Amino acid sequence: MIDLRSDTVTRPSAGMLAAMTSAPVGDDVYGEDPTVNRLEETVAGLLGHEAALFTTTGSLANLLGVQALIPRGGELLCEASAHVVRAELGGHAVVSGVTTRTWSAPAGQIDLEQIRALIAPDLGPYFVTTSAVSVENTHNFGGGAIQHGYDALADELESRGIPLHLDGARLWNAAVATGRTLASYAVRASAVSVCLSKGLGAPVGSVLVGSTELVREARVWRKRLGAGWRQAGVLAAAGLYALEHNIDRLAEDHANARLIAEVLADAAPGSVKPDQVDTNIVVADLSVTGKTVAEVVAAARTEGLLLGGIGATQLRVVTHLDASAADCRAAAETLARLLKG
Amino acid sequence: MIDLRSDTVTRPSAGMLAAMTSAPVGDDVYGEDPTVNRLEETVAGLLGHEAALFTTTGSLANLLGVQALIPRGGELLCEASAHVVRAELGGHAVVSGVTTRTWSAPAGQIDLEQIRALIAPDLGPYFVTTSAVSVENTHNFGGGAIQHGYDALADELESRGIPLHLDGARLWNAAVATGRTLASYAVRASAVSVCLSKGLGAPVGSVLVGSTELVREARVWRKRLGAGWRQAGVLAAAGLYALEHNIDRLAEDHANARLIAEVLADAAPGSVKPDQVDTNIVVADLSVTGKTVAEVVAAARTEGLLLGGIGATQLRVVTHLDASAADCRAAAETLARLLKG
Amino acid sequence: MIDLRSDTVTRPSAGMLAAMTSAPVGDDVYGEDPTVNRLEETVAGLLGHEAALFTTTGSLANLLGVQALIPRGGELLCEASAHVVRAELGGHAVVSGVTTRTWSAPAGQIDLEQIRALIAPDLGPYFVTTSAVSVENTHNFGGGAIQHGYDALADELESRGIPLHLDGARLWNAAVATGRTLASYAVRASAVSVCLSKGLGAPVGSVLVGSTELVREARVWRKRLGAGWRQAGVLAAAGLYALEHNIDRLAEDHANARLIAEVLADAAPGSVKPDQVDTNIVVADLSVTGKTVAEVVAAARTEGLLLGGIGATQLRVVTHLDASAADCRAAAETLARLLKG
Amino acid sequence: MIDLRSDTVTRPSAGMLAAMTSAPVGDDVYGEDPTVNRLEETVAGLLGHEAALFTTTGSLANLLGVQALIPRGGELLCEASAHVVRAELGGHAVVSGVTTRTWSAPAGQIDLEQIRALIAPDLGPYFVTTSAVSVENTHNFGGGAIQHGYDALADELESRGIPLHLDGARLWNAAVATGRTLASYAVRASAVSVCLSKGLGAPVGSVLVGSTELVREARVWRKRLGAGWRQAGVLAAAGLYALEHNIDRLAEDHANARLIAEVLADAAPGSVKPDQVDTNIVVADLSVTGKTVAEVVAAARTEGLLLGGIGATQLRVVTHLDASAADCRAAAETLARLLKG
Repeated sequence: MIDLRSDTVTRPSAGMLAAMTSAPVGDDVYGEDPTVNRLEETVAGLLGHEAALFTTTGSLANLLGVQALIPRGGELLCEASAHVVRAELGGHAVVSGVTTRTWSAPAGQIDLEQIRALIAPDLGPYFVTTSAVSVENTHNFGGGAIQHGYDALADELESRGIPLHLDGARLWNAAVATGRTLASYAVRASAVSVCLSKGLGAPVGSVLVGSTELVREARVWRKRLGAGWRQAGVLAAAGLYALEHNIDRLAEDHANARLIAEVLADAAPGSVKPDQVDTNIVVADLSVTGKTVAEVVAAARTEGLLLGGIGATQLRVVTHLDASAADCRAAAETLARLLKG
Repeated sequence: MIDLRSDTVTRPSAGMLAAMTSAPVGDDVYGEDPTVNRLEETVAGLLGHEAALFTTTGSLANLLGVQALIPRGGELLCEASAHVVRAELGGHAVVSGVTTRTWSAPAGQIDLEQIRALIAPDLGPYFVTTSAVSVENTHNFGGGAIQHGYDALADELESRGIPLHLDGARLWNAAVATGRTLASYAVRASAVSVCLSKGLGAPVGSVLVGSTELVREARVWRKRLGAGWRQAGVLAAAGLYALEHNIDRLAEDHANARLIAEVLADAAPGSVKPDQVDTNIVVADLSVTGKTVAEVVAAARTEGLLLGGIGATQLRVVTHLDASAADCRAAAETLARLLKG
Repeated sequence: MIDLRSDTVTRPSAGMLAAMTSAPVGDDVYGEDPTVNRLEETVAGLLGHEAALFTTTGSLANLLGVQALIPRGGELLCEASAHVVRAELGGHAVVSGVTTRTWSAPAGQIDLEQIRALIAPDLGPYFVTTSAVSVENTHNFGGGAIQHGYDALADELESRGIPLHLDGARLWNAAVATGRTLASYAVRASAVSVCLSKGLGAPVGSVLVGSTELVREARVWRKRLGAGWRQAGVLAAAGLYALEHNIDRLAEDHANARLIAEVLADAAPGSVKPDQVDTNIVVADLSVTGKTVAEVVAAARTEGLLLGGIGATQLRVVTHLDASAADCRAAAETLARLLKG
Repeated sequence: MIDLRSDTVTRPSAGMLAAMTSAPVGDDVYGEDPTVNRLEETVAGLLGHEAALFTTTGSLANLLGVQALIPRGGELLCEASAHVVRAELGGHAVVSGVTTRTWSAPAGQIDLEQIRALIAPDLGPYFVTTSAVSVENTHNFGGGAIQHGYDALADELESRGIPLHLDGARLWNAAVATGRTLASYAVRASAVSVCLSKGLGAPVGSVLVGSTELVREARVWRKRLGAGWRQAGVLAAAGLYALEHNIDRLAEDHANARLIAEVLADAAPGSVKPDQVDTNIVVADLSVTGKTVAEVVAAARTEGLLLGGIGATQLRVVTHLDASAADCRAAAETLARLLKG
């Protein structure tokens, strides 16, 4: 089976497992797990922030970050297909009482004009105030798109005193694809989540970074949500290994995704624009083929290829470290055959 | 003072006060206030629904309606300047855990294409599902605009099995302006709020209508939110009086608003299009005048005229039953002078 | 019908209605209702606090007071049959995320030893901290009992820096029965709710008092919960009238309740101790009679007497300004006959 | 250092680490991690329930279980020092809107009389209804006490149709100490949490068990709270290893705790009753010694012994698989010396 449903499906490598079993651990609820502490310091440093918190998932890192930035009844603005409003089951509303308004843009892009029109200044206690704007970079349902205009938005928000939230689950991919440092993105935001268990290949874990004060509050809320784990160093060790070994190689995933896109564009013209495949996610619009996602996914499965979709017509193909260049080429060819068939 | 800040500023008339003092009352928590019961039956009947609940405010009627339609973590779609996401302090998120995504359109209009793109079908427990769409008709911050495409949206939602929420705080104005019955709007929605204390002139009170089951649940939540009042019949009597005496006369408010808009368009060309003033609210864009809302509001106040604004450049003028045609003409002339000065 | 189910059933008198129709009103959301403002100033003054907020119900005043005193995840201690944990549908948990632990005592009394054992000091972010203690005085389900040890508890809490919340829905009754001033109770607490629509006879309305800062926050949350009403002066006028005319006369209600208790003690020895009937509520334990509350309530109803109960065996009889001494004597005799029959 | 602060401090053994690195894993969000699935099936089977869910912590398993059993505004009864109301930061109120009332008993015991007095039947929508009763067995802050009267309470609740929630973080200890099967406890409850990372020695992880329906809902909420992890099989493998190797040996921890209690009772008569040390937790009352917990904990630390406390006077000593009999004897002797010194 070649599994290109998501980069979350990767399994820990032998080297990573060895790192996990040799790491010193302790009780992280007491702040005593040396490997967790090392991971948190490492990621805070990489991202240019004061402090970090190791969390079970990217969704939790987002939830805790948004919770720390926005008071109850305050507003988060984000793009309408952002993970935070589409794939986190409304946690920000349920847990944090945060309300959201959205702009819509192709590939989930930042649209500064729309954002300016949405931002609600503090007009006193009769109206909702915009407390933060969230950007997902790269943008998952936007096809792994690098967010253009990131710095312009950050400038705008800074001038207005509105915090930026960065959902950086795949910030590694953005940094590798653009050649920018991780910190050059992250320092513009007041809270940043990054994920170790997607393209980086760790089995479990994400990290929230921000100020010491923000992370202190997030740590309390992590416990309130039942996520204050104990000897989490076994997982943090996987994260540290991933940071050391698996960032640069994301370029391979990007090349593999581009290859798949090119094969698909050839097989089903108009379904995807290869030069818009920025990183490791290919979203192909099957409506030009007359086929549905469900059909294609089912057919691919019978040929040993696992794929996913967004809605009825958009096929999603994600490359990652458990799918070699050869796997991806084979997958592309299978898929091309199915789309043409 | 002529007060055109809002139609919420109206004071009960002598006839209304007489109705309030002569109404039989009882303990509404026990369901025993005959005047409250009569009001609820009357409004349910007018709107073509099974049941109704008398609430303190339109915000509460919206909160309880949304709560009844949408499970925690479920999604409400609405226009980005709708009262429910702008002026209710995030209650739907705080109390009900409801998450929101928005479209943006001039005058707060329904935009069926955008709505279709936003609607999230039930894709299983990994994604947020659209549980309801809310329409505000007329649309307050949209300048009292009647919502075009209301029935087309209702048809679309019906075909998809998604409930419609109607924020009908000023549905009376829409009905009077279009000649449609209230029920012709209301029956398309699963929950409808209407407000007795805006153009209709009652001192306090709104009504939520829907199915018997929806209203039963809303009644429990009304009590949970500390809004289960006792001898509310004194207020319900004002509402009944308002329904009997003050609906048809809204046409006068609409004519007065149109008059004001014409005077403003003349004084400050480009600030407002009179033929787009559908009902009793005039929103004038002061950017063409080089003046700010704050300046104009302050200057008007010194001349005995109270006005409001939406943000820095949009002046809002609202007509109502406590402002006669002569008052409105005088106000328009004062304002014209200030804008030209 | 003589209705002794609750003191909430009272209807506004002619004098009160006259006050309601002659009061000047305005838009209270803008802080412009002069009668609401006068009521808030009057009650704040009576209770010796800086500020006050007029609310729809006592439940809302409690909800907003608790919300202002206790952060999310913080703890409120109270007696196990207090209104705030028994009859407010969990609003403090649902809206404010406040957790509760309880002591149990006869007549809902303060039990300082139990409270001391329950109080959780701040042990850092792993444990719940006691953020406030609530006392209901008089205690509704405790049979209208005046809370002994109120000042000792207030001293204890003051020494520990823990705020006291006073549910004073019937604080008027406590003050009249003991001869203490309202302020002598209220100044010991950081937030106090008092109710105008119970023994005082107003149709709707309660008041929350506290510091300027606490009331400012409560006002925002009142709006968030959809309870920011408009020309509420019509109700505030009833409250002002009630404060002026109906406090001292509560002594009559107390005498009537004592009379009823004496007749019941005679008819059903052991069911009630008349000298423990402190104010206007009689709770009689029917288990000594072999009859259930449901039977007695149903039989009384056929004789024109409305009564209520707490659970299966406790009959509750409440006197108020719409039940004269003669009414209460007649009710007592009817009831005595039923209990003996 | 001998660390007897908690049984959460244990580190994974070599055998456990080997199990973790050799386990097959997959993406548990998709339900595809074979080791997680095996763990969930195993624990459900052991406890005699239909289904199970692997969670990050015992707090999360409690939160999800309570959430599934109790609607918003519903009530959970529990003992006043139960983990669920003392050490979970109010999560049940914050996330689930669950309100709590409590009884108090020595060693956190079940007190059927008090519970009967607290249970609130469904009296209609004006009152809070008791939706579940929670029992912690063994009881952490009650000194690891086995809960007597467990079956009598279960019988009572069954007859009333009220679900029992079992916080079984240390149910293994209860079963080993009494010789009862785990299932004999668990089948009496509608939702049970058990913890793999306390006495059983796994680094991270707990399990919630219940009906298929309850677990299905809990799985959705687990994701909503950001706790839907990916290749969690690496942790589940530790749990499976723990179940296989570390249950029976809890008897050693119990013997060690008893030994410590005996030494302490000798050194500081009255501080602890050894025959009341049911399992692996010793709570000693230092008030008889004139020393505070802070003093003793600090002094012990300088001698290489880590201890904890509950409040100012109760020292807590917890035995576990990383503290041998010799370690525990040495610890007891050190402690005895400090208490006498």
